[in-house]
Amino acid sequence: MTAAPYPFATRHIGPSTTDARAMLAVLGVPSIETLISQAVPKSIRLERPLDLPAPASEAEALVELAERMSKNVVLKSFIGAGYHGCRVPPVIQRNLFENPAWYTAYTPYQSEISQGRLELLFHFQTLVTELTGLPVASASLLDESTAVAEAVGIAYRHHREKRHRVAFAGAPHPQTLDVVTTRAEPLGIEVDGETIDEDTAALVVSWPDTFGVYGNHADAIARAKAAGAIVIFIADPLALSISETPASLGADIAVGPMQRFGVPMGFGGPHAAYCAVSDKLTRLMPGRLVGQSVDANGRPGYRLALQTREQHIRRDKATSNICTAQALLANMAASFAIWHGPLGLQSIANQINAFAERLALGLKAVGIEIDGDRRFDTVTITAKGKAKEIAATAEKDGRLLRVIDNDRVGVSFDQASTEEDLEAIAALFGAKPSPAGKAKAPANPRGKGFLTQPVFHENRSETDMMRFLRRLADKDLALDRAMIPLGSCTMKLNAAAEMMPVSWPSVANLHPFAPAGHSLGYREMIDDLEKWLSEITGFDAVSLQPNAGSQGEYAGLLAIRHYHQSRGDHHRNICLIPSSAHGTNPASASMAGMGVVVVRCTEDGNVDMDDLKAKAAEHAGNLAALMITYPSTHGVFEEGIRDICALIHEHGGQVYLDGANLNALVGLAQPGEIGADVCHMNLHKTFCIPHGGGGPGVGPIGVKAHLKPYLPGHVTEGSEHAVSAAPFGSASILPITWMYIRMMGASGLKQATETAILSANYIAARLKAHYPVLYQGRNGRVAHECILDTRVLKESAGIGVEDVAKRLIDYGFHAPTMSWPVAGTLMVEPTESEPKREVDRFCDAMIAIAGEAERVAKGEWPREDNPLVNAPHTAAETLVGDWTHPYSRLEAAFPAGDAETAAKYWPPVSRIDNVGGDRNLVCSCPPMAEYLGAAE
Amino acid sequence: MTAAPYPFATRHIGPSTTDARAMLAVLGVPSIETLISQAVPKSIRLERPLDLPAPASEAEALVELAERMSKNVVLKSFIGAGYHGCRVPPVIQRNLFENPAWYTAYTPYQSEISQGRLELLFHFQTLVTELTGLPVASASLLDESTAVAEAVGIAYRHHREKRHRVAFAGAPHPQTLDVVTTRAEPLGIEVDGETIDEDTAALVVSWPDTFGVYGNHADAIARAKAAGAIVIFIADPLALSISETPASLGADIAVGPMQRFGVPMGFGGPHAAYCAVSDKLTRLMPGRLVGQSVDANGRPGYRLALQTREQHIRRDKATSNICTAQALLANMAASFAIWHGPLGLQSIANQINAFAERLALGLKAVGIEIDGDRRFDTVTITAKGKAKEIAATAEKDGRLLRVIDNDRVGVSFDQASTEEDLEAIAALFGAKPSPAGKAKAPANPRGKGFLTQPVFHENRSETDMMRFLRRLADKDLALDRAMIPLGSCTMKLNAAAEMMPVSWPSVANLHPFAPAGHSLGYREMIDDLEKWLSEITGFDAVSLQPNAGSQGEYAGLLAIRHYHQSRGDHHRNICLIPSSAHGTNPASASMAGMGVVVVRCTEDGNVDMDDLKAKAAEHAGNLAALMITYPSTHGVFEEGIRDICALIHEHGGQVYLDGANLNALVGLAQPGEIGADVCHMNLHKTFCIPHGGGGPGVGPIGVKAHLKPYLPGHVTEGSEHAVSAAPFGSASILPITWMYIRMMGASGLKQATETAILSANYIAARLKAHYPVLYQGRNGRVAHECILDTRVLKESAGIGVEDVAKRLIDYGFHAPTMSWPVAGTLMVEPTESEPKREVDRFCDAMIAIAGEAERVAKGEWPREDNPLVNAPHTAAETLVGDWTHPYSRLEAAFPAGDAETAAKYWPPVSRIDNVGGDRNLVCSCPPMAEYLGAAE
Repeated sequence: MTAAPYPFATRHIGPSTTDARAMLAVLGVPSIETLISQAVPKSIRLERPLDLPAPASEAEALVELAERMSKNVVLKSFIGAGYHGCRVPPVIQRNLFENPAWYTAYTPYQSEISQGRLELLFHFQTLVTELTGLPVASASLLDESTAVAEAVGIAYRHHREKRHRVAFAGAPHPQTLDVVTTRAEPLGIEVDGETIDEDTAALVVSWPDTFGVYGNHADAIARAKAAGAIVIFIADPLALSISETPASLGADIAVGPMQRFGVPMGFGGPHAAYCAVSDKLTRLMPGRLVGQSVDANGRPGYRLALQTREQHIRRDKATSNICTAQALLANMAASFAIWHGPLGLQSIANQINAFAERLALGLKAVGIEIDGDRRFDTVTITAKGKAKEIAATAEKDGRLLRVIDNDRVGVSFDQASTEEDLEAIAALFGAKPSPAGKAKAPANPRGKGFLTQPVFHENRSETDMMRFLRRLADKDLALDRAMIPLGSCTMKLNAAAEMMPVSWPSVANLHPFAPAGHSLGYREMIDDLEKWLSEITGFDAVSLQPNAGSQGEYAGLLAIRHYHQSRGDHHRNICLIPSSAHGTNPASASMAGMGVVVVRCTEDGNVDMDDLKAKAAEHAGNLAALMITYPSTHGVFEEGIRDICALIHEHGGQVYLDGANLNALVGLAQPGEIGADVCHMNLHKTFCIPHGGGGPGVGPIGVKAHLKPYLPGHVTEGSEHAVSAAPFGSASILPITWMYIRMMGASGLKQATETAILSANYIAARLKAHYPVLYQGRNGRVAHECILDTRVLKESAGIGVEDVAKRLIDYGFHAPTMSWPVAGTLMVEPTESEPKREVDRFCDAMIAIAGEAERVAKGEWPREDNPLVNAPHTAAETLVGDWTHPYSRLEAAFPAGDAETAAKYWPPVSRIDNVGGDRNLVCSCPPMAEYLGAAE
Repeated sequence: MTAAPYPFATRHIGPSTTDARAMLAVLGVPSIETLISQAVPKSIRLERPLDLPAPASEAEALVELAERMSKNVVLKSFIGAGYHGCRVPPVIQRNLFENPAWYTAYTPYQSEISQGRLELLFHFQTLVTELTGLPVASASLLDESTAVAEAVGIAYRHHREKRHRVAFAGAPHPQTLDVVTTRAEPLGIEVDGETIDEDTAALVVSWPDTFGVYGNHADAIARAKAAGAIVIFIADPLALSISETPASLGADIAVGPMQRFGVPMGFGGPHAAYCAVSDKLTRLMPGRLVGQSVDANGRPGYRLALQTREQHIRRDKATSNICTAQALLANMAASFAIWHGPLGLQSIANQINAFAERLALGLKAVGIEIDGDRRFDTVTITAKGKAKEIAATAEKDGRLLRVIDNDRVGVSFDQASTEEDLEAIAALFGAKPSPAGKAKAPANPRGKGFLTQPVFHENRSETDMMRFLRRLADKDLALDRAMIPLGSCTMKLNAAAEMMPVSWPSVANLHPFAPAGHSLGYREMIDDLEKWLSEITGFDAVSLQPNAGSQGEYAGLLAIRHYHQSRGDHHRNICLIPSSAHGTNPASASMAGMGVVVVRCTEDGNVDMDDLKAKAAEHAGNLAALMITYPSTHGVFEEGIRDICALIHEHGGQVYLDGANLNALVGLAQPGEIGADVCHMNLHKTFCIPHGGGGPGVGPIGVKAHLKPYLPGHVTEGSEHAVSAAPFGSASILPITWMYIRMMGASGLKQATETAILSANYIAARLKAHYPVLYQGRNGRVAHECILDTRVLKESAGIGVEDVAKRLIDYGFHAPTMSWPVAGTLMVEPTESEPKREVDRFCDAMIAIAGEAERVAKGEWPREDNPLVNAPHTAAETLVGDWTHPYSRLEAAFPAGDAETAAKYWPPVSRIDNVGGDRNLVCSCPPMAEYLGAAE
């Protein structure tokens, strides 16, 4: 126990006590209690402290967690089944994975300040197109299993939702089959094996299959093509570096896990899945897609492309509810490929393949039966009645094999496998591996044209690689340099002490399907978290499996669906959703087989109670659920929330509370206590999981007791209806949240919520004279965020919300959330960890921008040439010889007058052209013949 | 065993095989072997591969080292004696200690690109002045023991080397007494206890003493003052946060270890020692001193002050041979104080003090005798005949006590101590600690005026702290962004895999005086290193104790001194040193009690053999040693080195080979085999210890068998004549070198040397048409560095070497070594880890600069207004409204025409005024009354 007068909460929370007093003074309230009583309805207030362990110091919490995690047994895994040991290159671990410049960055919506991570994601996409042979790849999906489900979704929508059958060629991994089946059922899609006919939407080819076998599926593929079905390949990306491409074998879509590209297994996640499609399917592809465009000066620049596919535009017509990517992990995988290059990847793949072939030959030589003739890394071995016994012997030697059933054992080699492993495993079966070099080296169908793009050849030395990563990081503006005042997507501190355990070997190197007794440390931590999150939210049970908010929404609605079904209420399939809802809500409802009925909102942003009553009554017989965000997407605490919940229950519906804004409730109110039956939490918002430049996310759900039986299960835990590939989703980053709650304690968490509300109201108070603040709630207070109406500048000076957002870059800020939930506005959320002086710097910038607009309004600066419409300003632009603008160079680049502080963030590009980029879509770097000479 | 085609050597070495071929083509030689045979005399070549383990991959080496280090037993330490457990704040560990932007930076000689680390070192100095009450503090020394020796040296020189006695008040730590005694002996200074008279140079007050007691030394101090002696305080800096200042008690100098300010014990180091002095002693202070000055635009800027004190100016008249600081560790300590602020530090100190007081009261209550009345953290307990038994019992419970002798045990509390520890320790003596709150809280003599400077109050939240550290790092140009082409101070890659073990708990948390059986892992690693370094250098034994190159020089000369003495040759005290030697050589010789005789050099930079023969003969009777750098400080392999060594031996002298340029020999030749008797190695140059922005350094020595008995010993290892406080010096960073050698193997190390020589010759070839290359050796080849003569630009265009150096900043480079060893030149060393494209970018910049000078020479640009004399250019300057220069803004800031690449390094200040800064010396931030209100 250290006696420092600064417990962790004072480190996490930005404003000091003195700061808070000054902020309260601006609001004219005497105390934080008074402010909270003004902002938060008394009817929902929790009147007792949360029942959580007393806050620990950083050192204490680290010791406690290390003790827990030391109970994990980390053996060498040969289990495979989608998770493989690999070497995280130290240069990538230190300079990317553990570097706040990378992990504290936000999703790259503001392309001008995101060129570094966009470039690396673009390389990821290029890598995937090279591996698969397909022309378009996304910036990653959540995991292999959900990626297959998404691919089936693409096929389903491609056929205008009119074909209802999915066939398989080669067995997928059990968890993948479970997730696909779970996802197919609400859509009425039959997952039925080998039948291929006019009702078949897709044929899913596992290549190789879960037993490691590359089957001959040419006939099935031909039949699928003939029937007009979409052909989906599930393929290991490392295997692809030395095999034919899925495209060459007829694939329309290819998906697979990128984990073994330098991302630790981490007891299941997070890691990135890849997804590539043929041209015709591009606009149906879920998730993020990075495209190359140009900036206002014609310089190439990257940005997120084709955003019109997404939920906030298409709502229940969206192609998926996914609204994130595994950006940090995709960037690690891209870096792994850049570091090793084509020869390095192929060398790793060949070595693994040689181990598998040598084992297979050695076993055959002593007459042991094995599956299939061609394989990559996995040998499935028949050992009648002895599978468990053999696995137990291997375990004693420190190796985990896969027990497929009583008669079969699976052995998967990986980058960490050694000659000694090979020999010991062969010996388990009384065999010797065939000698090295004897197994026939497979012909490499790749030739010289693989990964010829320069980036995969220029960074072979560590000095190059380190500088490459630094250069990219420097192009971006992340939380380590400035406030990111995003409304709705809280960007709070990711404390170093929270991040450190993620790199511990005991956390990083466990296979998710290791025997349950090997993950006792993990399971204790997960138990803690489930208990703590239940207490915080007022629910009876929590599932940590959903590995993104969207997955949480889906899992929550699925629980409701299964609950109704369990009572025979198969007809209950109407979901009421207020018009103010985030677009993922209708998208998730649609995926869960529900019909969406929109409920109107009043002018002040609340649910229109009359309309709600009418709609609830109208659909009472079929009412499945209401989805409602609380506090609302407009950032206010609606007074009538309890009544709303009661109304829905009266009509037989369940209340799904969207926990996007849970950070405004923690310690002050509990969704479960207010009347919700289920709620998802965004750990990356409320509980300090870093945004990682656009993922990972974690979206657990809490449920009332009656829904507990319908939480996601998992095949390895003896249950089903999984929504993610791994039983505990992105398990390896859960320590971040554990550390946060453990160090904050009940008092710290409550103070964080109060401070977030204080800071939001402080910003509203400082800025309301310059920008109307929309949707203030009771007593004129907002919750934890506020909506600033910039349309006044449009009227007076022709300055649009985008101009304000881009001009903020010149002031050294990431823009707030733009035009959501109201077009032409900025939604601002300071969050509790931003120091007052940074909040003030932001307010000063916003006021200065209003002043700049005023000069335009007065005609001092022309509407078509002023620092706002020209923002952001690059260094190259501001130094041009002939400066023709009516404002000065210093005003362009240092508008806050801080040229002497030398802490300037310079955007690498000027404003990016989004429309043009979507028109001429470039999503990967084509193979370049002219670089062939440079390839080693 | 991974099969990647890129072993670590290909990651460490920058140029690929293809690159190397292209470079050889420029040199017109067919192979690297040919080049090496041209550059390196055959007579010294090692004709066999080094006998080292075969190279391991990163993963293999990490596993092997982790297995070794797992043999360390890390118990909780209560040993104290200068080393204390502490909490490294995670925000500092991750964002400073483990961040290449901090650890790959060079010593801040080029102030314009070093403002970040200079600012933090300035805060360190301010912290020390606040703690000690003395007006001037340096940027750190190596450790407590050497700092005391340095302080004695100050006193000695203050008295013009005419007083030869040092007295003590209060017992210092045993290792400190040993180091001081060792250092005093060659200077004829008597270390004699309590006598204070007219021959007493200094009184050293241990406050508290090694037994934890604050003695009453007022009388001794008064007598010392009366006798005109300098009063030196050794004081624990954490204790000083709640005690009177040494200055207020009469200290002229205060020194102590800053380790417990957030730096791990690391089995002894590295950590920073502080040193503060009264005004009159400023110019005698050893080591680095940061001062505030102004830049060309009048903006404040930091730089190293009073460099005229140093060895390269004063040589054997220098005040010390120290030419480094523990910059990285000093910056960690400063960050620790910034993070905790005055209240945090005092709270930690008070808690520790309360533990000690409560133990003391509890023991007294049961009649146990303890030392002294007033203490900070340590209780020395009498336990007649039972000391070892009690310590053994404590050890079984996981706690290490200090066994002072058979009858006394020491217990030191620290930041990691807990109530449980207190109770368990009291119980060992059958006592209970007095209850908390009962021990009288000491009056805090600090009042409100302590650490009132804003920086110690503004960074209390982690968000603030993280951004503070990032902002500072961004001001600096380190190896993670660009080549640092320093000659003589090799700036090679510090690979991430090499750095990672330093953070392992098994490496970081061991007390250097833990029982030998607890450091078996460390000792095995040290054995490996001693063996490997012996093989590499051709010596029979190696000592890793010297914790800087200067210490190595000193230890090597001391070995020679003691060897001569052992043979009765007390008169052998003449050291021959070529005029080309680095200034530390004569300074070290002087400290080792030797008289320096300078040997002339020939015009081509070699030792003048005739003069050497003459001097050797002249001093044959008294010849102690020759110190010679090989390859020479001019960067050439002298042909006659074997003859030189033989000559010295003939005259009864020993050959000290300065291993500064050992990186040009590794795998090609062995100093021991060439004829040297002793040699120091700079691990931070040749063996990848990072420069850390100016320290730590490690300077082991290798010796022939006859000198082995005279290697440094250590009191805790049962020997004496230590040169550093800890038995193995900076033990915790030795894993970096272990990893490097383990991963490179003999072939990799040799290839590194060859590549360094290739790259240096490539630069010489590319630049010789623009700048004369001085001191080319045989066949017109240089060794691993080359000297470019910029005086041609002075003649033609009035452009000085400093203008070239500062202009390189605009091109995005750290300058090469300036005006050393030859005034008006740049010494360039590419080192093997720089990729060819970066080397080319540097050559292009140098050629472009020659072109710019040409335009000045032609009169196109005036001599007083051109981009060279105005360099470097800040952003603020280049954006001013009225641009009056004859070159463009883009030419100013983006001279390489790369404005579009957006990877620009912007210097935060323009050229710093060094002379003015020394004239008005400002070395700390004064306490600011006006900030008192802001202090918490």
